Amino acid sequence: MEKDQILKKLRDLREKDPKFSDGRIISSVSTEPLDFAVEAFNIFSDTNALDVNIFPEVQKLEREIIDWFGTALKNPEIDGYVTTGGTEANIAALFVAKKLNPGRREILVPESAHYSIKRAAELMDLEIKWIKLDENFRADITDLESKISKDTLAVVATAGTSSLGVVDPIEEINSLCKDIFFHVDAAFGGFVLPFMENAPCIDFSLENIDSITIDPHKMGMNLIPAGAILFRDKSYLERIKVSPPYLSFSTSTISGSRSGGAIASVWATINYLGFDGYQKIVQDCLKNTEFLCNEIEKLDGVELVRKPDINVVGIRIKDMGPVSAELIKRGWDIMPDLESGSARVVVMPHVTETVIKNLVSDLKDILA
Amino acid sequence: MEKDQILKKLRDLREKDPKFSDGRIISSVSTEPLDFAVEAFNIFSDTNALDVNIFPEVQKLEREIIDWFGTALKNPEIDGYVTTGGTEANIAALFVAKKLNPGRREILVPESAHYSIKRAAELMDLEIKWIKLDENFRADITDLESKISKDTLAVVATAGTSSLGVVDPIEEINSLCKDIFFHVDAAFGGFVLPFMENAPCIDFSLENIDSITIDPHKMGMNLIPAGAILFRDKSYLERIKVSPPYLSFSTSTISGSRSGGAIASVWATINYLGFDGYQKIVQDCLKNTEFLCNEIEKLDGVELVRKPDINVVGIRIKDMGPVSAELIKRGWDIMPDLESGSARVVVMPHVTETVIKNLVSDLKDILA
Repeated sequence: MEKDQILKKLRDLREKDPKFSDGRIISSVSTEPLDFAVEAFNIFSDTNALDVNIFPEVQKLEREIIDWFGTALKNPEIDGYVTTGGTEANIAALFVAKKLNPGRREILVPESAHYSIKRAAELMDLEIKWIKLDENFRADITDLESKISKDTLAVVATAGTSSLGVVDPIEEINSLCKDIFFHVDAAFGGFVLPFMENAPCIDFSLENIDSITIDPHKMGMNLIPAGAILFRDKSYLERIKVSPPYLSFSTSTISGSRSGGAIASVWATINYLGFDGYQKIVQDCLKNTEFLCNEIEKLDGVELVRKPDINVVGIRIKDMGPVSAELIKRGWDIMPDLESGSARVVVMPHVTETVIKNLVSDLKDILA
Repeated sequence: MEKDQILKKLRDLREKDPKFSDGRIISSVSTEPLDFAVEAFNIFSDTNALDVNIFPEVQKLEREIIDWFGTALKNPEIDGYVTTGGTEANIAALFVAKKLNPGRREILVPESAHYSIKRAAELMDLEIKWIKLDENFRADITDLESKISKDTLAVVATAGTSSLGVVDPIEEINSLCKDIFFHVDAAFGGFVLPFMENAPCIDFSLENIDSITIDPHKMGMNLIPAGAILFRDKSYLERIKVSPPYLSFSTSTISGSRSGGAIASVWATINYLGFDGYQKIVQDCLKNTEFLCNEIEKLDGVELVRKPDINVVGIRIKDMGPVSAELIKRGWDIMPDLESGSARVVVMPHVTETVIKNLVSDLKDILA
């Protein structure tokens, strides 16, 4: 095929799937990246962050990103790197924990943790001790405390769970982790809570947090692939360093070749938006979250699973099966968890008041 | 900062690092992606391959890519997915092997294997039995055979090693792996050997090969991130499937969110180049490899480490320390392995006859 034909075909195919701006995507943790972030990606799309000898500027951009996170998360001394996403970041964190304490095998994980934690545990032969959730769907601190033992390798908490946006009691868990590796999966909430008023603390000012996952490609407004893993201690990455004989440098990342484009786009996005920009985005999302919650509370046949901590809303719907089928027929991407009869709405920046009004109106119509 | 300022800054920074077209990058396994591949990436840059409910067209494109690999590698029935690169692909392969035979722990790995295999083994607590290399730097088949035991989980072979481009004796290894998972890391050579005349067979026509890593972002002419893992058996991916309660679908990839842009760009590149296009690229690279080898053989003070199997050339240089320092000073990205006194030249498409002439001329000058 010729180039033009191929690009035309791809453009046509892209039209068949929805855009975030269509106002029908309500279950995704992705949103429309800034056009400008894609342009930044393109400028460095031919670079490989692994080849630090060839592309030192990419390494400098990445260092500036990590420093920016250090400021946002209250510890300018952190180290870390830009991953392909939250899964790689979570794997890197637990891999470091394992290297630090090779004799220990157990990790304490709230039942609401992202599936990548289970994935990482399976990969690494770590044994998960599941932590119950309290009545508000947070990690039960009493259960957690009772399960800590001398075999505990790490404790995982989530700042913004996937199904309900729950923020685990991170401050309380922190106080239990003096001698235990404490990893906070803030893949989603890491770009929400630090920019939110009166938010629970999830940052490195809590002295026992060892690592934080934070994903620019979720609420960071960046395109995929762009996650990040951050470590309190600069020596941690040394623990997973490799020095292949054919390279003149060592590397501590789980991925080998890494997109310099992804790094440039994150750098562009955080420098453009800045703390103020993220504050504004978060404020808007939270306002729309509140609007959605108020509308849901007014409706018969639906209810909130809980009062949301951030911009993820769990909605329980009577007769979820047929109702969700009808919603899907009308173009909504709702994903019902039939066991609990609930589904999540992620109030990303593209989920505006208008989108919410349309959703509520369809819900009302279907339930009537 | 304003958008324009940020993009200008990034363009300026990009100018400080070399481009592949400058003709000085000779050690990288990356090359300039087709402009057109970047355009294809952009069309789908806002899509997430994980969200198959929202972006079914991305899933279809990915299926077409896997089918294309199936044809190229002589088994239309394979399954697989587009990874972020070779490391994720190698991890996925060994993860499947581990799931298939949870009681076994040992993997047989030639000393020349990519470092990601060691990484994967460390992650997964697999024990590596290192296989010696023969005098031609290939996996020693006698050593390998002697190390197979009932604890052998998998055998790994490489089609195009990182330092010397060596193709392990895959056909012979294949005949030893009737009851053992056999993974071929063709991250580099997967886009070379199938398009080369009289090449050793590395494809699924060898009946015991279970999985193949093949990276579009190396010799596939694609931008990063784009690797792939291919499995002979469609049930293998089932072994690593997860079904998170908040998603209405299951997923078998190691990464969570995945760039739809990467999938679109691979689809565009393979459809544009086709088998003929890759054949032409490989022919040119091999011609230039031969030219480089001939020039090296004419020079005093340098020699070939071995006659190359593909377009990766190991060069041994007398006084490697000072010579490589001077080459670096002149802008070459040579990475000396001081222990063996050698360095690799990867004859990627941008390493043209002119580039080679310049390199040889500088070498001659420095050695004189």
